[in-house]
Amino acid sequence: MKFYSEMNKEELMSEKNALEAEYENYKNAGLKLDMSRGKPGAEQLDISMPMLDTLTSSSGCFTDEGVDCRNYGILDGIPALKKIFADVLGVKPENVFVGGNSSLNMMFDTITCFMTQGISGCEPWIKQGKIKFLCPVPGYDRHFGITEFYGFEMINIPMDSNGPDMDLVEELVSKDSSIKGIWCVPKYSNPSGITYSDDVVRRFAALKPAAKDFRIMWDNAYVIHDVADSGDKLLNLMDECIKNGNEDLPVMFTSTSKITFPGAGVAAMACSDNNMKVFKGRYQYQTIGYDKLNQLRHLRYLKNTQGLIDYMAKHKAVIAPKFKCVLDMLNENVKDTGCAKWENPNGGYFVSVDVLEGTAKEVVRLCKEAGVVLTGAGATYPYGKDPKDSNIRIAPTYPSVGELAQAMQIFCVCTKLAAVRKLLG
Amino acid sequence: MKFYSEMNKEELMSEKNALEAEYENYKNAGLKLDMSRGKPGAEQLDISMPMLDTLTSSSGCFTDEGVDCRNYGILDGIPALKKIFADVLGVKPENVFVGGNSSLNMMFDTITCFMTQGISGCEPWIKQGKIKFLCPVPGYDRHFGITEFYGFEMINIPMDSNGPDMDLVEELVSKDSSIKGIWCVPKYSNPSGITYSDDVVRRFAALKPAAKDFRIMWDNAYVIHDVADSGDKLLNLMDECIKNGNEDLPVMFTSTSKITFPGAGVAAMACSDNNMKVFKGRYQYQTIGYDKLNQLRHLRYLKNTQGLIDYMAKHKAVIAPKFKCVLDMLNENVKDTGCAKWENPNGGYFVSVDVLEGTAKEVVRLCKEAGVVLTGAGATYPYGKDPKDSNIRIAPTYPSVGELAQAMQIFCVCTKLAAVRKLLG
Repeated sequence: MKFYSEMNKEELMSEKNALEAEYENYKNAGLKLDMSRGKPGAEQLDISMPMLDTLTSSSGCFTDEGVDCRNYGILDGIPALKKIFADVLGVKPENVFVGGNSSLNMMFDTITCFMTQGISGCEPWIKQGKIKFLCPVPGYDRHFGITEFYGFEMINIPMDSNGPDMDLVEELVSKDSSIKGIWCVPKYSNPSGITYSDDVVRRFAALKPAAKDFRIMWDNAYVIHDVADSGDKLLNLMDECIKNGNEDLPVMFTSTSKITFPGAGVAAMACSDNNMKVFKGRYQYQTIGYDKLNQLRHLRYLKNTQGLIDYMAKHKAVIAPKFKCVLDMLNENVKDTGCAKWENPNGGYFVSVDVLEGTAKEVVRLCKEAGVVLTGAGATYPYGKDPKDSNIRIAPTYPSVGELAQAMQIFCVCTKLAAVRKLLG
Repeated sequence: MKFYSEMNKEELMSEKNALEAEYENYKNAGLKLDMSRGKPGAEQLDISMPMLDTLTSSSGCFTDEGVDCRNYGILDGIPALKKIFADVLGVKPENVFVGGNSSLNMMFDTITCFMTQGISGCEPWIKQGKIKFLCPVPGYDRHFGITEFYGFEMINIPMDSNGPDMDLVEELVSKDSSIKGIWCVPKYSNPSGITYSDDVVRRFAALKPAAKDFRIMWDNAYVIHDVADSGDKLLNLMDECIKNGNEDLPVMFTSTSKITFPGAGVAAMACSDNNMKVFKGRYQYQTIGYDKLNQLRHLRYLKNTQGLIDYMAKHKAVIAPKFKCVLDMLNENVKDTGCAKWENPNGGYFVSVDVLEGTAKEVVRLCKEAGVVLTGAGATYPYGKDPKDSNIRIAPTYPSVGELAQAMQIFCVCTKLAAVRKLLG
């Protein structure tokens, strides 16, 4: 097979006719599949069902310290769970705050806190006029949603297999004090699946932003979510920041949404003493405390940090075949045409595919017409605008492998069909 | 016994000596009891333990509509639980938003939303300069904490057995557009235990605030929390508001914190279509959804609105003897001295005692020295400042009846001792 880019018009027409026939067949098959979000499948959720049976008696509802988790009390999470999240995020337990079921909510609250309370001696962001935020792309739509909600100007930062373009990041933040932060998913990035290189992490830790109140939103959602046998290693950002006297730069987040239950997990954040003082100064008015029974349920079930890490092997067993399916299908059906590129992630929740420029929206439309709903084209860019109309996020976890194979056949046909049509003009 | 106010110096001296001897005895007994917060006791928490066993299988984790509560999805709460909260708050289910474990958090988020997003065509509060908020007193310290955190000027509104002084409320809100809202606990008010009269509710519903973005924060925390056999009836505020075309005025809140578990209950809010549009416009960026498994757990256990109401009889059986103990002790030991006043609440979580003016701090100090920690004097007022230094909130639910009787003996002695010392000058 020649690359589409090397085909002449006749060859493309012939390919187009073949693809259209194939596409009609799939359309007539009447598949209905929603792959729009990074949702675990039922098999994954079933793994954690025993967690719901861990709190069986009144006396079993107490922490080691004797706190009754059914009652009021404890603002920042039960100690043994703080310890686990501290290990996972690479910080000290006293720098961890365990919250409710959503790390996104903690990120939203963090940005909101910066909006209304000044940090590092600065005015609240909302009073500083135009605020800008750096957004490595492709990235996570719900991150961009928060900064769009508050009216920030979002600046695209290109990503490669090492992470964000740090030359650009350094240049921008050192010059422009209206740039207040950056969104990062440093490990198994959403959606590209790459992990930031040691050099990128070191350069983040050494940033000298013009804005004293610049913060790195370090969303480590997939910190222990390996799919490959040999997972990626992410350098410890907080350690590097401390070496540079920059420990106030990062605010870190993670959760068990993709470990236990997306709808009923536990989220946590971590940061320096200075930042924690600001956040706790707000949290103490925001709530009396988060759901400690759910925290205790997680602790009883996962036991400790090693227990948590070991637990991920069960997820890997379910997820790895799904990633393999997606990548196999792409390699078999698309690679030879040269009309799309993708990463081979070692973990996380997504496969990011760059289809022929100017065809992503059309691929998503064609897939939808054939019964496969994908994440909207453009969703991985601020304002939903992919300047090249090229990136599509594939979320393989929700369907079964069988459904996924069907869906990927459709995706591959649609990717190729949109490409040849585009090339034919 | 004469009223202290009618005693001469000799009689007061004699009373003082007797009280000091009694106080020393209690001090030496070495009691240790924390009555500082409105926490349910263990016996109450045990009532709800079976709730933790309601989710036993994967198939049992689905709503009637087929939504898997373990996974992502549903922003505003599972439908059957929305229905229950709608009934309880007296609104339509579509005007309810079910959230996480804390109604205080929903109130904080509501105020924060008004701070950063304009409502009713107005600028965000944070951009409007000096903002004022009305605070019926005595009231709930955590309400005042939120408005203090954001730097609002809080204005005390006296309460009587009908509710807030509505002449004053009407006058202030009609004249001053910088007054943006009022905190209300309309039923079994925290701490006085009174329920707003029909006339007060009607006058709230008919308010004509100078500020278009004025809102009533209607915290119905104790909406079904009767202690007496014949509970108070609260007029439906939303119905009255609709009659006046004022449906955007109230934002209502409640929770199961004092029904199931304070640390792991479910909270809800309710408001008009216009307000809900604003809140949902924010919630959709704030989170993917709240803990639906805990929502489902509550639904399975409480079943429906009648089930919820019936359930409160179990709480009443535990709490009513505690309220009786507090009131009996006050009647037996303090009433004849005329040195304190209190309400006889038909429900809620507190007994509010007004001790002799200028002695509340001293009573709390004396109690603490004898081993009984009460809510800090002044806590029921904005900025922690009770201008008369008179109000003390007694929270009878946490101790056992036996401990409570001991604690109340100490409280009564301290109340009288502080009074005679004050009168002696």
